[in-house]
Amino acid sequence: MSLDTATLERLRGQDAAHYLHPFTDSRELAAIGARVITHAEGIYVFDGEGRKILDGMSGLWCVNLGYGRREIADAVHRQMLELPYYNSFFQTTHPRAVELATRLATLAPAAGETRFDHVFFSSSGSESNDTNIRLVRRYWDLMGQPQRKTLISRWNGYHGSTIGGASLSGMSGMHSQGDLPIPGVAHIMQPFAFEHAHPGESRDDFGLRAARALEEKILELGPDTVAAFIAEPVQGAGGVIIPPDSYWPEIQRIVDKYGILLISDEVICAFGRLGHWFAYEKFGYRPDLVTFAKGVTSGYVPLGGVMVGSRVAKVLVEQGGEFNHGYTYSGHPVACQAALTTLDIMQAEGLVERVRSDTGPWLAQGFAALADHPLVGLAESCGMVAGLQLVRDRASNTLFDSALGVGMLCRGHCFNNGVIMRAVGDRMIIAPPLVMTRSDIDELLRLIRHALDLTLADVRARGWL
Amino acid sequence: MSLDTATLERLRGQDAAHYLHPFTDSRELAAIGARVITHAEGIYVFDGEGRKILDGMSGLWCVNLGYGRREIADAVHRQMLELPYYNSFFQTTHPRAVELATRLATLAPAAGETRFDHVFFSSSGSESNDTNIRLVRRYWDLMGQPQRKTLISRWNGYHGSTIGGASLSGMSGMHSQGDLPIPGVAHIMQPFAFEHAHPGESRDDFGLRAARALEEKILELGPDTVAAFIAEPVQGAGGVIIPPDSYWPEIQRIVDKYGILLISDEVICAFGRLGHWFAYEKFGYRPDLVTFAKGVTSGYVPLGGVMVGSRVAKVLVEQGGEFNHGYTYSGHPVACQAALTTLDIMQAEGLVERVRSDTGPWLAQGFAALADHPLVGLAESCGMVAGLQLVRDRASNTLFDSALGVGMLCRGHCFNNGVIMRAVGDRMIIAPPLVMTRSDIDELLRLIRHALDLTLADVRARGWL
Ligand SMILES: Cc1ncc(COP(=O)(O)O)c(C=O)c1O
Ligand SMILES: Cc1ncc(COP(=O)(O)O)c(C=O)c1O
Repeated sequence: MSLDTATLERLRGQDAAHYLHPFTDSRELAAIGARVITHAEGIYVFDGEGRKILDGMSGLWCVNLGYGRREIADAVHRQMLELPYYNSFFQTTHPRAVELATRLATLAPAAGETRFDHVFFSSSGSESNDTNIRLVRRYWDLMGQPQRKTLISRWNGYHGSTIGGASLSGMSGMHSQGDLPIPGVAHIMQPFAFEHAHPGESRDDFGLRAARALEEKILELGPDTVAAFIAEPVQGAGGVIIPPDSYWPEIQRIVDKYGILLISDEVICAFGRLGHWFAYEKFGYRPDLVTFAKGVTSGYVPLGGVMVGSRVAKVLVEQGGEFNHGYTYSGHPVACQAALTTLDIMQAEGLVERVRSDTGPWLAQGFAALADHPLVGLAESCGMVAGLQLVRDRASNTLFDSALGVGMLCRGHCFNNGVIMRAVGDRMIIAPPLVMTRSDIDELLRLIRHALDLTLADVRARGWL
Repeated sequence: MSLDTATLERLRGQDAAHYLHPFTDSRELAAIGARVITHAEGIYVFDGEGRKILDGMSGLWCVNLGYGRREIADAVHRQMLELPYYNSFFQTTHPRAVELATRLATLAPAAGETRFDHVFFSSSGSESNDTNIRLVRRYWDLMGQPQRKTLISRWNGYHGSTIGGASLSGMSGMHSQGDLPIPGVAHIMQPFAFEHAHPGESRDDFGLRAARALEEKILELGPDTVAAFIAEPVQGAGGVIIPPDSYWPEIQRIVDKYGILLISDEVICAFGRLGHWFAYEKFGYRPDLVTFAKGVTSGYVPLGGVMVGSRVAKVLVEQGGEFNHGYTYSGHPVACQAALTTLDIMQAEGLVERVRSDTGPWLAQGFAALADHPLVGLAESCGMVAGLQLVRDRASNTLFDSALGVGMLCRGHCFNNGVIMRAVGDRMIIAPPLVMTRSDIDELLRLIRHALDLTLADVRARGWL
C-alpha cells in the first residue's frame, strides 16, 4: 500500500502549504518534505515509500496495544451508533463515563490512607494538568489557606503545552516563547544522575540531594505558600530519566513534612508502561492526584483525566459546591468506550503482569547490553521505557558537541533502517508497545544496534570522534 | 431500551461515587441522582426511564448532524483499522491530517487580504484558545514588539476551562476559583443590549458604545501593550447574545486602527451554525485567527484547532523557527477522519445553505413569535442558535429575582416534557442540530411553548408573579 509518487508529492505539498505541525519548524519541514505514515499493523508502521518500520515509540508513548486492534474499532463503531456524544454537565450522565470512572477507581490501588475513588475526565494530558492546577488551588481555598498557590515542578519535566501545562513543564524552549511560566509555578532540578551527580557522588546520595532541592525550594518560597509538587514517576519527554531509588521516598518525606499535595503525572507511565497499572505503585509513594491520558485508550481516541485522591475529593465534594471547571468532551462516550475496551484487552492478555515479570525484565537485560557499544555511555530501562546516552568517549563519558546533532543523525539511521527511536538531544529513547513479545524485543534490539553501528560509521566518516 | 430499575440505580450510585462531572456540585448531584442518557437517534436522545427527548442543544452545541450517523461510524472504523493514531511531531505526517487541513483551508474564505491557508490542530476549544495565546505572543515577539502581551476579551464571554481558556473567559464564577485570570488578560463589556443599553439608547448606538469599550481599554492599557482581541461572533455559553449590527464593523475599525490581532472564537458558530462555514463571513469582519472545535466532527470525536491567517502564518513560518507548542493528539487521524466525513455530509446535504436560506429564517420567524408569551421578554435567533429572556413583567421587562431559579425551573419542565433547552440564568437557549427540517423546528417550538406554559403555571402557583 505504498503511495504512487504523484500522490506522495501532492500530500507533501499540501502538508507544507496547510498543516502547521506540533513542535515543528514549518519552513525547514517544507524544504525537506514530511515523511508520510500511511498505515500500521501490530507493532509496525508503514510509510509512503512502503517501508515497514518497527514503532519503538508506540506512536507517541500511547499505542500500547499496537495498531489495528479490531476489538477497539468494533466497540467504537457500536458506541457511535448507540450514543456518539453526550455531555455530563447539568446533572446528566451516560453509562460509558460511569463505567469507566468505576473501572479506573477499581484499578487504582489505595496509597496509604488515600483512596482513588473519583475521576475527572478531559481529552489530553495538558487539559488534565490544567485541571490539576485548578483542583489544587480550589482545595487550598476550601481549606482556608488561599495563600497556598505555588506548584513546584522540575526542570526538564514535561506536563503539556497549554498555558498551564507549559508553565509546569520545565522546558526553557517553551518558556521563552510567550511569557511563561505563569506566576505561581517554580522549578527545581531533575534527578538525572548522569548529568547532575557530582564526581564520586553515589547514585543514591545524588537522589537524596535532588529530592532535597524540593525542601530547599519550599523553604525559599515559604512553606505556607506552596500548594503542590508535580512530577513524572520516570521523566518521559525529557529523555527517559529514571530516578535513583532514594529519590521518591525522600520526596514523600518532604511533601508529608510540609503537608503539600503530591501530583503524579502518569500520562506516560500509567497503564502498564512500568509494569503496574499506576506508577506510584512501583515507587511506593502516595500521590493525591494522578494525571493520566495516552495509554488509557491506547491512543485510539483522545482521552485524559485525573484520578482524584480522597484527601482532595472529600473537601471538593463535601464542601466545594459547584466546581466551575470542565470541558465539552469531559467523559466523551466514544473515548470512554475506547478506554473500556483497551482495559478489557489489557486484562485479558495480562499485559501489566507480563511487562512486570516477563518482557520488562527481558528488555532491561537486552537494553543494558547495548552499553558495550562504543557510542553508548549509559543504557537503562524501567518496564517498557528505555533510554541510552550517546557519548563521544565511553571511558570519560564525554558528550558530543550538541550542535553536531548526533542524536538526530542516529534517529535518521533508525528510521531509514526500520525502527523508530526518538532523539532527545543525544539521548535515544524508546517506549515500545506493551504487546511486544520477547522475540519482538530481540528484533527491536537488533535494529537499534544496527542503527548505532551505522551512526558510529557516519560519525567516524565525519571526523567527529 | 429503557434500563431496568436495578441497573439505573446502580449507574446512579456509581456515578455519584466515582464520576466528577464538569461544572457540577457533586454533592447536590449525588442527592438527586443524575439523569442517565442511554442512547440517541437523529435529533432525539433517550433516557434511562425510556423518555424520548428532542435535543434542542445538539449535545453541547456540537452534534450538528444529529445522532446515529452511520457514515461517520463506518469511516472511523475503517480509519481505526488503517491507522488509529500517529503523531505529526518530528517531521512525520499522515494523510488524514493533511487532507483535513487542506479541506479547511479551502472552506475558509479570505477576509480582505487575510487568507486562511494554515491550520493547527488540537482536541478541544480550550486547547485551541491556549494555542491562540501562545501564537499571538509568539507573533509579537517575532515582530520585535514583545511588550505586546495583553489579550482583551469580554465579560460573560466563554473561551474554555484551561488556565488560558478560563482566563480569557469572562466568567466571574470561574475566576474566583483559583486565581484567574493570569496576567496579561483584560476584559471589557459584552454587547448585550437587553441588559446594558441605556433607557432610550438605540440598539445600534448601544452596539457602537459596546465596541468602543475596546478602544477605551486599549488606551487605558497603552496601545503598544495590547496583542489581540478575542470574541465569539455570537456569545454562546453566555446565553446566546447576538450583537447589534453596528458592533462588529466598529470592532474592526478599532483593531485596524491599533494594529492588534483579532481572534474569532467560532467553537460554536463555525460549520454552519450561523448559516455560513465560518461566522466571520456573516458579520463581515476580518479575523487573524479563528478558533474551531465542536461542529467540525459533529462531536463524534474530540477535535479542535485554529485557522491561522496569513498575517500570522507568514511570520511564524518564515521567521519563526520551531514553534515549541503542540499536543500529542494534534491532528489525530481518527478525529480528522470524523471531521472529513462530517464535512462530506454537510456538503452533500447542503446544510450550510439550508440553514442560511431555509431553516434559519424559519426558526427565526417561529422563535420570534414566542415573544407573545407572558413569560418572554425577548426572543431572538441567528441561524440555528436562539435565546429567550424569561421576565416577570413584559411591559416593563422586569426580571425575576435570580435566586428563584426560574430558568432552572423552566429547564426541568422542558426535560420532563420532551425537549432539551439550556438555562443560563433566566435566559433559555437552544442550538438545535443543523439537520432539522421545518417540521422538526415546528415540533421544537411547540414543545418550547408547552414548557413555557407549564413554567408560567408553576411560577403562578408559587406566587412569584
Ligand atoms: C508526562 C506528560 N504529561 C503531560 C503530557 C501532555 O499530554 P498531551 O500532549 O496529551 O496534552 C505529556 C505528553 O507527552 C506527558 O508526557
Ligand atoms: C466559544 C467557545 N470557545 C471555547 C470553548 C471551550 O471548548 P472545550 O469545552 O472543547 O474546551 C467553548 C465551549 O463551549 C466555546 O463555546
